Amino acid sequence: MAYKIAALDNLVAELAKLPGLGEKSAQRIAFYVLRSKNNYAQALAQALLDVKSLIHDCPVCFNFTDKDLCAICADTNRSSETLCVVEDPADILRIEESGLFKPRYHVLQGVLSPLDGIGPEQIRLKELLERIENDGVKEVILALDADIEGDATCVYLTKLIRNHDIKVTKIAHGVPIGGNLDYVDTRTLGRALENRVELK
Amino acid sequence: MAYKIAALDNLVAELAKLPGLGEKSAQRIAFYVLRSKNNYAQALAQALLDVKSLIHDCPVCFNFTDKDLCAICADTNRSSETLCVVEDPADILRIEESGLFKPRYHVLQGVLSPLDGIGPEQIRLKELLERIENDGVKEVILALDADIEGDATCVYLTKLIRNHDIKVTKIAHGVPIGGNLDYVDTRTLGRALENRVELK
Repeated sequence: MAYKIAALDNLVAELAKLPGLGEKSAQRIAFYVLRSKNNYAQALAQALLDVKSLIHDCPVCFNFTDKDLCAICADTNRSSETLCVVEDPADILRIEESGLFKPRYHVLQGVLSPLDGIGPEQIRLKELLERIENDGVKEVILALDADIEGDATCVYLTKLIRNHDIKVTKIAHGVPIGGNLDYVDTRTLGRALENRVELK
Repeated sequence: MAYKIAALDNLVAELAKLPGLGEKSAQRIAFYVLRSKNNYAQALAQALLDVKSLIHDCPVCFNFTDKDLCAICADTNRSSETLCVVEDPADILRIEESGLFKPRYHVLQGVLSPLDGIGPEQIRLKELLERIENDGVKEVILALDADIEGDATCVYLTKLIRNHDIKVTKIAHGVPIGGNLDYVDTRTLGRALENRVELK
């Protein structure tokens, strides 16, 4: 390239690390920031620093929070009987947005993945078992991704939790609402048939 | 939403202002930053601040630069005879990437758009005319967007520059290389026919 500006190239390189951004979109964003007015670049930089300095893990469920406890753990209206296990805090956001269900949560901060060196010690499993023993949990809902690591983690957790005489459930996999059967992959369709629900 | 974290919401709001990012992708990026390690957030914040503090307009052509003159204006190998007029510095990047052509540039920092209050005084027109008078320019190539404002700016510039007895050209509009005629809009196709080139 004919002209290189180190600061611009550096910003493009940092932006291109973000999920969903390629080289082109990083470049477009970098030029936008360069042309921006009203201290937008400063505001964005401060917002980036703030999330890292002000937000930390909730000591109970490992959701993100800027308080002592996250808003859900601090909510005394939620029963401790149902504990929903997720991989990361973004999953909580999705489940809460669905609005149908108000459980308490436990964030594993990962799933078992032996090939990547992630075993039971590397995720928040010990803390999950402690909560199950001490918090009067009656049902554990596993809401992990439907991939190999997620499924393996479900199997592992189920074995561990069953020892405590607690109901373990897993979110249903099947045809998405509004989904057209033509576009559903065969494994999902197989699972949807296997887990069919009786109409009454 | 059940749980609000001010710092997180603020970051999502700032990110969503960037071109090409909607609410969902801003949220995904914000969570990525929250989970990021190795001081990534600090590095990105610093990169944002650096582009604003280290980069300024080239005083000759109004391209971006971190030096006294931009690399193209400082390049003594480029002839001053051909001056390519563009709307913003990102356009220079595109033209240089095409690699076929090594003109000097002039960045207008906008195009005429009376409805938005952008007239000849709001773009770098005076500076363009000064360069044309003093730099021994023999051809001015107009490489502006092919929209209404771009076309109107071309017409306006052509009238002004012709007074100086200088050749004024405009980049060709037509069917993109590799483009299928089925997918080309009728106005582009009309222009491609009108500007047909004789094969020799």
